[in-house]
Amino acid sequence: MLITLTTDFGYQDAFAGIMKGVIAGINPKAHVVDVTHGIPAQDVTAAALTLRHAVDYFPRGTIHVAVVDPGVGSGRKPLLLEAGGNYFIGPDNGIFSLALEGRTPSCIVSLSNPDYHLQPTSSSFHGRDIFAPVAARLSLGVPPGDFGALEDSFAKLTLPKAIRHESQIDGEIIYIDGYGNLFTNVDEHDLTGLPRSALVLDLGLVRVKGLASSYSSVGTREFVAVINSWGLLEISVYKDNAQRLSGAKISDKVRISWAS
Amino acid sequence: MLITLTTDFGYQDAFAGIMKGVIAGINPKAHVVDVTHGIPAQDVTAAALTLRHAVDYFPRGTIHVAVVDPGVGSGRKPLLLEAGGNYFIGPDNGIFSLALEGRTPSCIVSLSNPDYHLQPTSSSFHGRDIFAPVAARLSLGVPPGDFGALEDSFAKLTLPKAIRHESQIDGEIIYIDGYGNLFTNVDEHDLTGLPRSALVLDLGLVRVKGLASSYSSVGTREFVAVINSWGLLEISVYKDNAQRLSGAKISDKVRISWAS
Amino acid sequence: MLITLTTDFGYQDAFAGIMKGVIAGINPKAHVVDVTHGIPAQDVTAAALTLRHAVDYFPRGTIHVAVVDPGVGSGRKPLLLEAGGNYFIGPDNGIFSLALEGRTPSCIVSLSNPDYHLQPTSSSFHGRDIFAPVAARLSLGVPPGDFGALEDSFAKLTLPKAIRHESQIDGEIIYIDGYGNLFTNVDEHDLTGLPRSALVLDLGLVRVKGLASSYSSVGTREFVAVINSWGLLEISVYKDNAQRLSGAKISDKVRISWAS
Repeated sequence: MLITLTTDFGYQDAFAGIMKGVIAGINPKAHVVDVTHGIPAQDVTAAALTLRHAVDYFPRGTIHVAVVDPGVGSGRKPLLLEAGGNYFIGPDNGIFSLALEGRTPSCIVSLSNPDYHLQPTSSSFHGRDIFAPVAARLSLGVPPGDFGALEDSFAKLTLPKAIRHESQIDGEIIYIDGYGNLFTNVDEHDLTGLPRSALVLDLGLVRVKGLASSYSSVGTREFVAVINSWGLLEISVYKDNAQRLSGAKISDKVRISWAS
Repeated sequence: MLITLTTDFGYQDAFAGIMKGVIAGINPKAHVVDVTHGIPAQDVTAAALTLRHAVDYFPRGTIHVAVVDPGVGSGRKPLLLEAGGNYFIGPDNGIFSLALEGRTPSCIVSLSNPDYHLQPTSSSFHGRDIFAPVAARLSLGVPPGDFGALEDSFAKLTLPKAIRHESQIDGEIIYIDGYGNLFTNVDEHDLTGLPRSALVLDLGLVRVKGLASSYSSVGTREFVAVINSWGLLEISVYKDNAQRLSGAKISDKVRISWAS
Repeated sequence: MLITLTTDFGYQDAFAGIMKGVIAGINPKAHVVDVTHGIPAQDVTAAALTLRHAVDYFPRGTIHVAVVDPGVGSGRKPLLLEAGGNYFIGPDNGIFSLALEGRTPSCIVSLSNPDYHLQPTSSSFHGRDIFAPVAARLSLGVPPGDFGALEDSFAKLTLPKAIRHESQIDGEIIYIDGYGNLFTNVDEHDLTGLPRSALVLDLGLVRVKGLASSYSSVGTREFVAVINSWGLLEISVYKDNAQRLSGAKISDKVRISWAS
């Protein structure tokens, strides 16, 4: 049984390793895969976007554990969701809501049963004390309902939507990857029927003309726009870093226009 | 059989991957888990603290390999320790001494038998040439004594201890995690009998009043003190980085006082 | 069957995790090991050097997947090579050429058969859509020739070579590791017959006298020269960072001289 981990623990500390130790102690046969531990600290939206574009590449039946959890130890519930044949374990702060968009969970459980938590249970590391042991027990076949009380709903994030006007689309930067590529909230479908080579993208002082089919369509250190692996319009710089060269940041506005 | 790795190799280079290749070549069934490769370069104390708070979350019988080894190639011995049913393999520089505090090893072996080393054996990468092959052979059932000569003792680190006076405790910062949280050497037991809500913490110009039960007990970007997942008093900033906001560093003094 | 991954994906994003998801979906028994995901962005030479010094530490029959791929989506071919009993999958940009130096591949296949690609196939993430599924199918026993057309040749990198004159060797920095150690292109064999203790290394304003047998042969924060785990002459600083202290960068010249 596959268990994935998505966290903002970073790579200095042993937090992710400890979760794997807890899992291995309960189910030595569990296969744990790191989605990433490099989510920017406390950035629930970045984690939710990451999961939205990762979950479908894992086999059905996978248990996805996510821990970006600034509210740990407060009132926010620890949650288990089942949807589309997959399982999602983490804090009820919206972290799974983008991956589950358009899918109704068949089961929502608050992890309220302390029998499945490590004792003593800390108030600052539920990844170790609640999420890891629950994931490991689930992978051994414990039914979801055993972990706690059934719930009716779970927290949801809302992303800003791109708006298509008659002769332009107003979008914004929603994610910046480790290469410095700027991901907009404009997706392939927003561009339906538009002349790709005639599009003009404006981001602050940066203007990019046309949509390219690969990064290397332009010269080294030139800006280029592509549809990326998330299906989103992305502004990149060939062999360099678009974030650094543009100074762009999350929520910066992007305008796509065309001669109509 | 579980083998863990704890190193300061970082994530740019292939050093950790190569150790896994060596292990897989000797015991393809070994299950290798990264505790972390992000220990600050050459910081044996940080590695020792990390292991102290990680080892107990792994199943009994685990082989813990640690390589933070500025003295590699010099006179320091490569060592195998057995204690509490677990195994510890690494340089004899104190790296395991905090994890083993209060436990007497049942066996201390200097890895002096070259039959279990890769040949040629480099003087700069014992992780690859000595520790990985020894761990892999141990996981296959080779008895500890086969790897070299029995020893009487191993190197130990000493940590500064918090001192409790009549109306204050003098402690210091001993670890700073990847979030910038400041871990002090004051543990839960040092606070026994004290009124948690009436404690006053002073760290340089930062003053925190009271001990909270979760980070989110305060407002965004405010300092907060909690007992963390290591059981230590920690100074943190909700949704931000306490190290950056305070300028604190390892060994900075912390004073905890209370109205007596 | 062992599959390794070597990429410049970094550790913020889910790219490497997604490749593991794709592999697990096709061959749940595949054993995936990260060589590293920390290759500097777009640095094909650094990846090629890393592989040159890693491949031989993995068991024969390993499938090595490498993705440092600035030309993704352009004309460069996706490739599968078989050599020395191992397999190499990645872009045809020279990334495997240093690992294969002196070895003639028994088989070179362009991954032109779309039956083995994820559909739709993106133009920006062949790691996910081509390399991962091909590696997973190969690990299940699909013959190399099924993945596409046989090729005659593959791209090769050339490294600057050290030149030995009568009384000096002219070399340069070719790699800088995560500790800031400076790797030169001068290898052990270039130094045959020379008096190690009498060598003088000049790198900009830094002069190092003699070749040491370990980093700790000098005092803390002093420069030291050693033969490193790649068999190369390396300039390091004991318990500190030689790159930062010297300001050196890739291609900086190093001169080794001796009293003749």
